[in-house]
Amino acid sequence: MRSVIDIVDLSVEEIDGLIDVASDIIENPKKYSEKCKGKKLATLFFEPSTRTRLSFEAAMIELGGNVIGFSSANSSSASKGESVADTAKVISCYADIIAMRHPLEGAPLVAALNASIPVINAGDGGHKHPTQTLADLLTIKREKGRLNNLTVGFCGDLKYGRTVHSLLGALSRYTGIKVVLISPEELMVPAYVKHDILEKNNMDYVETTDLESALPSLDVLYMTRVQQERFADVEEYERLKDSYILTAEKMEKAKSDTIVLHPLPRVNEISVAIDKDDRACYFKQVLNGKYMRMALILKLLEIREKDDSPFTIDREDFVYSTYKCHNKKCISMVEQELVNIAKPSETDQSVLRCVYCDKKVN
Amino acid sequence: MRSVIDIVDLSVEEIDGLIDVASDIIENPKKYSEKCKGKKLATLFFEPSTRTRLSFEAAMIELGGNVIGFSSANSSSASKGESVADTAKVISCYADIIAMRHPLEGAPLVAALNASIPVINAGDGGHKHPTQTLADLLTIKREKGRLNNLTVGFCGDLKYGRTVHSLLGALSRYTGIKVVLISPEELMVPAYVKHDILEKNNMDYVETTDLESALPSLDVLYMTRVQQERFADVEEYERLKDSYILTAEKMEKAKSDTIVLHPLPRVNEISVAIDKDDRACYFKQVLNGKYMRMALILKLLEIREKDDSPFTIDREDFVYSTYKCHNKKCISMVEQELVNIAKPSETDQSVLRCVYCDKKVN
Amino acid sequence: MRSVIDIVDLSVEEIDGLIDVASDIIENPKKYSEKCKGKKLATLFFEPSTRTRLSFEAAMIELGGNVIGFSSANSSSASKGESVADTAKVISCYADIIAMRHPLEGAPLVAALNASIPVINAGDGGHKHPTQTLADLLTIKREKGRLNNLTVGFCGDLKYGRTVHSLLGALSRYTGIKVVLISPEELMVPAYVKHDILEKNNMDYVETTDLESALPSLDVLYMTRVQQERFADVEEYERLKDSYILTAEKMEKAKSDTIVLHPLPRVNEISVAIDKDDRACYFKQVLNGKYMRMALILKLLEIREKDDSPFTIDREDFVYSTYKCHNKKCISMVEQELVNIAKPSETDQSVLRCVYCDKKVN
Repeated sequence: MRSVIDIVDLSVEEIDGLIDVASDIIENPKKYSEKCKGKKLATLFFEPSTRTRLSFEAAMIELGGNVIGFSSANSSSASKGESVADTAKVISCYADIIAMRHPLEGAPLVAALNASIPVINAGDGGHKHPTQTLADLLTIKREKGRLNNLTVGFCGDLKYGRTVHSLLGALSRYTGIKVVLISPEELMVPAYVKHDILEKNNMDYVETTDLESALPSLDVLYMTRVQQERFADVEEYERLKDSYILTAEKMEKAKSDTIVLHPLPRVNEISVAIDKDDRACYFKQVLNGKYMRMALILKLLEIREKDDSPFTIDREDFVYSTYKCHNKKCISMVEQELVNIAKPSETDQSVLRCVYCDKKVN
Repeated sequence: MRSVIDIVDLSVEEIDGLIDVASDIIENPKKYSEKCKGKKLATLFFEPSTRTRLSFEAAMIELGGNVIGFSSANSSSASKGESVADTAKVISCYADIIAMRHPLEGAPLVAALNASIPVINAGDGGHKHPTQTLADLLTIKREKGRLNNLTVGFCGDLKYGRTVHSLLGALSRYTGIKVVLISPEELMVPAYVKHDILEKNNMDYVETTDLESALPSLDVLYMTRVQQERFADVEEYERLKDSYILTAEKMEKAKSDTIVLHPLPRVNEISVAIDKDDRACYFKQVLNGKYMRMALILKLLEIREKDDSPFTIDREDFVYSTYKCHNKKCISMVEQELVNIAKPSETDQSVLRCVYCDKKVN
Repeated sequence: MRSVIDIVDLSVEEIDGLIDVASDIIENPKKYSEKCKGKKLATLFFEPSTRTRLSFEAAMIELGGNVIGFSSANSSSASKGESVADTAKVISCYADIIAMRHPLEGAPLVAALNASIPVINAGDGGHKHPTQTLADLLTIKREKGRLNNLTVGFCGDLKYGRTVHSLLGALSRYTGIKVVLISPEELMVPAYVKHDILEKNNMDYVETTDLESALPSLDVLYMTRVQQERFADVEEYERLKDSYILTAEKMEKAKSDTIVLHPLPRVNEISVAIDKDDRACYFKQVLNGKYMRMALILKLLEIREKDDSPFTIDREDFVYSTYKCHNKKCISMVEQELVNIAKPSETDQSVLRCVYCDKKVN
């Protein structure tokens, strides 16, 4: 059985397959309107996220299925101290597939290891959010006609933006991708992302603090928000913030076929005036997110029909229990009787990382 | 495309049409049980309201449709600062029609102007609540057989009661309506309601502080709650409150065919003992609310099938951006990049009102 | 019309009938997948309980029905002061059957007396939770093949554990049941339970503080949690708590066919290591809970088709209004205009008990 915790759990071929199914759904929605009849999706949202939750729910309903779930931890058994593992086992008695959002990193992996049904990670803290990346990829594919030979700019908070790291990871598997990283110095892409994704895959990339000068070269501009709370110095934030706000004026410098993406919700980092610009694709991205979630739900339920063996992550080189993760945002800090597991880093075998949150443990 | 933000967005003919459809649904529920198959209603409740939300949800389900949504702001993206306009655009990707409740006046109008699907106002602060008025009208029609030639008493808080103002507005378009306004002096109908609704339409009305003496003349008694927090002087409240509580004893003074309405929830303003009185129609009103919402959802989805042009409110005499609304409960106080629009008052062209909340801006 | 507030509202024959239907559902789920088409369950959860709420919702969906509701009081009209009676009357306009959880004892009974549809008690404070007991009974029946001639151990908090008292009550109607009550002295079964259930029905029971020595004799071990807040003395709690934690080591003393039950959520009172033991049946219990709720929903809707007379509890020996209940957790403390009713105790006619919460009133 399969679960999807990280975008790299899906091969390039599988992602291309999901894009094909999503495209077919867009063309022939009626063909899919009863595909999940009698099936139930459980949306287990331990923190609120309207957009993502309703996207999953709309996806399941458009497939003819039903939805149960909760939208915040205080209306769940978590408030009584139930472990993620037990919740996953209980929900496996009620539903056919789970979409889980959790504030702690690795919680959906713990759920997947304990559920007897597929689990989709719908966001675990600042860690992973694979279905957002699927939405991004479908939008690029449909708007630009390809996923290779593209110059892709990422603008804003590249340090903490999980959607940025995840899309970089996904694009690293396609050819001819040039990356332009646009951010204040405080919010540059972290060293491990440069090392593990950009350099390991020999990706062509440049870093800049200047959005306006970068704009003319881009096929895709991926915007994210620059949040005040990320800055130690409020004055520095005030000085910088306007540079990373996309306005109609700045858009004049972009090519006529550049597309603008944003994972939403937006606060003020893209002027509302741009919404009417044909190049603004962030609401199309929302729609595409629904279609990719439909494709993913279908695929995982199909796989499960054929193979209901439990989801496991055992690997020969895993190190059990010797190392303890010290990341306060990791599920291993609170989950009862969880086995500590460390894995060697892909780029440096001497570095061990927690399997739940990917942070170094040695 | 049509949205319904205010009861006056519907003509008398349209309201009569909705009453006919609702009556047909009551007679032939099975005929309608698949009408909305494959359609989704989004219930976007930025503040809780069980009764209204579940009424909309039951309505959609009885039409064979599905429901997605949220029931309070803290389980929505609003807690992350998303604008109402963006929420409306995002939800348009997931659903076919929206029912929105919001604590700020004008929020459903902003949603309607940005959504690509119809929006029904399910209550915006103390401002409008058109589907409650539809429930009131169907109940009067079914119980009294007519919507004209009626003496209608309104009792309680007539100053802040949006359901009272809205039903007065709806009734002003029928003939032979006599209005009896029963309230403490502190909670009398505001001057603008008297002016814009009662006097403008030459309605026959009287004001009194005495429920008992008014009762014998009434065909319809519309009760509302007198809340302590409306009074500056607690003693004044204590002295008055019992006069506006409907008891079995007071009901002896009413006619045998007077009907008692209440928008609910009730606290203690109608004694529970009256529930068994045949003249108590407030629970029938609840049921009728569901049927009118069914009729309205059907109508708006039908209109949209034929016409999916955006909902707009442009009018030649609108004044843009010069005036800013200062009503703290108006959506224009918080919504990003919202265009300020003022409209001349219908009764006095020199008075300009905010299009979102109807408050004076000059 | 029938409602189920307490497990004793169902006769042994009826419980056996529900077990038969649940077993048939397990064998032939498709036969039941459209039984409740067009019907709506309202889940009215005035306090959160994911497991119970989602169990009811999954049950209704697997019967082909729909669900509306709320999952916590702050997203309901209760926050506006609506009475339970009015909520029940309103929801009767929207749904076909109610499952209610409420923090106050007796609230579901008040709902049942006012609703025009069947009400199922999904837990009222520390009082009753009949569908948990139905889940327990089906699990014992399916795993042990019988509901008589069993030695059943109850371990942990036997003082406050409503699931324990309820299962004792249910088992008291079967023959050959031996009960072993295992708890710290602070948390022993209360005198009224011993008197009204165990002694009144001549049940064979022993009390002990020692889990390990009791284990070898048991056919069924029903675990519950020992909570720190139940102890006046923290040191006493620390000294005792480990004795009532079930570990793999302790399980070695149990028979090879002993089954372990737990109403969940578990915190740490059963080691996760035991989950893989074939004798651990608490997740099967979760699944069985869903099937028994399906059977119960079906039965109550069938009864209502034939008989829609209101649910009443009048009895000749009831005493009205003279006695007032002083239990702070009783719904009678807050519900408006509720008639106080006392009933003579079954075992001692001179003792009067509140009909809502069963506490003594004289």
